[in-house]
Amino acid sequence: MGDDQLRLSPKAARKLIHDALTGAGTSPRNASYFTEAILDTELSGLEGHGFYWLQYYCEHLLSGKVDGKVRARVKKLSPVAFRVDARNGFAHPAIEKGFERLIPAAKKYGIAGMAVHNSYNAATLGYHTGFLAKHGLVAYGFTNAMPAIAPVGGRTPVIGTNPLSFAVPARKKGEIAFLIDQSASAVTWTSVKRASEEGRTIPLGWALDAEGQPTADPVKGLAGSMAPSGGYKGFGQGLIVEVMCAALAGALRGPEMGSFQDNDGKPIGCGQFFIALAPDMFSGGAFHKQVAALAKSITAQQGARLPNARRTEMQRRLTKEGLPISRALFDRLVSFA
Amino acid sequence: MGDDQLRLSPKAARKLIHDALTGAGTSPRNASYFTEAILDTELSGLEGHGFYWLQYYCEHLLSGKVDGKVRARVKKLSPVAFRVDARNGFAHPAIEKGFERLIPAAKKYGIAGMAVHNSYNAATLGYHTGFLAKHGLVAYGFTNAMPAIAPVGGRTPVIGTNPLSFAVPARKKGEIAFLIDQSASAVTWTSVKRASEEGRTIPLGWALDAEGQPTADPVKGLAGSMAPSGGYKGFGQGLIVEVMCAALAGALRGPEMGSFQDNDGKPIGCGQFFIALAPDMFSGGAFHKQVAALAKSITAQQGARLPNARRTEMQRRLTKEGLPISRALFDRLVSFA
Repeated sequence: MGDDQLRLSPKAARKLIHDALTGAGTSPRNASYFTEAILDTELSGLEGHGFYWLQYYCEHLLSGKVDGKVRARVKKLSPVAFRVDARNGFAHPAIEKGFERLIPAAKKYGIAGMAVHNSYNAATLGYHTGFLAKHGLVAYGFTNAMPAIAPVGGRTPVIGTNPLSFAVPARKKGEIAFLIDQSASAVTWTSVKRASEEGRTIPLGWALDAEGQPTADPVKGLAGSMAPSGGYKGFGQGLIVEVMCAALAGALRGPEMGSFQDNDGKPIGCGQFFIALAPDMFSGGAFHKQVAALAKSITAQQGARLPNARRTEMQRRLTKEGLPISRALFDRLVSFA
Repeated sequence: MGDDQLRLSPKAARKLIHDALTGAGTSPRNASYFTEAILDTELSGLEGHGFYWLQYYCEHLLSGKVDGKVRARVKKLSPVAFRVDARNGFAHPAIEKGFERLIPAAKKYGIAGMAVHNSYNAATLGYHTGFLAKHGLVAYGFTNAMPAIAPVGGRTPVIGTNPLSFAVPARKKGEIAFLIDQSASAVTWTSVKRASEEGRTIPLGWALDAEGQPTADPVKGLAGSMAPSGGYKGFGQGLIVEVMCAALAGALRGPEMGSFQDNDGKPIGCGQFFIALAPDMFSGGAFHKQVAALAKSITAQQGARLPNARRTEMQRRLTKEGLPISRALFDRLVSFA
């Protein structure tokens, strides 16, 4: 670690995040779940999506791209179907408010769904599905984003890196058995963006140039498209997410969205969709036994691990060692407070 | 086309399929939806899963691995949650029976879920999700299978090629806008099995040998594992499907299942899970406009196509030209009638 890097305790990091969010114009009520999500992301070692993105959230607050004070509206469509209007505020308080209805509905009826529109980046999607899993539910989450992936054979990006996440509750209350959180692209868009900012080349297979050809130049990759993971199957995942968010949740499609990169005051307008399922109701009691056996069949193999093993390990380590942050980014975030 | 190949009209193919199924011991009531599914698969050009698999279905009927006459039982867990016990009969009549409850529930409440256990191969999963889409619903389908994929870094297969399917209804009643149907592996297990039967080598990247190394020998690949599509993301998809079927639906995990390849009388016991969603309820009316714009953004690009474009094209062509079948397979199927 160089002189230009600090280490923050989780407590200090929580304060930094909360102060930056509220300092830039988020109401304290809208900042609490959001603060925990950003902290959890940093603790999980997903640096690209924690402190790093927080500076953009604050810039968007100041430019009016996002409204930090607006309260989301939740519409009950049926006992198991909810539509949340985030009203061009952050995704996090809208999701938090919707979950207050989704969780009891899924527990009572076995399955429930929740759509979010007029929304904002959900950041680490697995935080939200993990939140549901900690409440004992199997959770499926989808969020769409600005265009980054072209259809296989084409050149023009039409869908985002569109992650989906799937979280599995552990038998022990409040714990997650495992969690899948994967984008439709070979790597995250943020990986390419950071490489371009730092002047690094990228491995072939991460991105395509504007002609649809593989490129090692992250600048050309950002001007072209992200390579879908596994070719048409990755594009298939992204397409599923786009339908769930832009069509089913009635949010904007990638090409209609406001840009995450500009402070032009134009709302992002993306969407999220969550499906929550009550494990014991469907499975007739077999759920936790089967999840435990499945997990063991993976962890018993040398060299193999559960999908969220790295995140769990990082949580333990970074809680102890503190969270690394560059002096420049720290100063930038403090300036919003 | 050589002398050893025939062409069947859809009508003749339907009769061949139905007669083979019922001749080998399926009740006519359990054979109707199943016959249409097999015919649709062949018409879609997915030869590996139509006539080819039908011979195994018939062998399994004769060996007692599957019960062609048993009636599935549907348990209503809530107004939107259903558990279907296929009772070691075919998956198709169980799914058909469950759909009779799932469809009206999803239309009324916006979302509904259906789990199937003690089941059998669902064959082309997209037939089932497409059936729901033709009824105006967004449909998510999952089915698990005998172990074929090892966790990344490991060697021992713990999950099947575990496909998922996602079908999107068109605005026009009874039609599908597009449909995604993809396994967790780079290619289907059937592709490797057929290559081994025909003595062909396979491209590197399709399968791994028992040491976890890429192989061009399909026999070594079948003794090893199928390569997951896009590495850990493909395994992630397979894991989601396994949780939905083996844990949430309470069916058997891959390693617990009866084999599809042996006529040993041991039931397969896999599971399926379906989630159906009512598009207009969640989207506030935006659904079909967004789906049409999304589809157009893909088809407008030269070289790009919708995920089910090939199937639709094949349906048109093979309906006109007739379905190809080898003389040997035709004779084999006739022998069951």
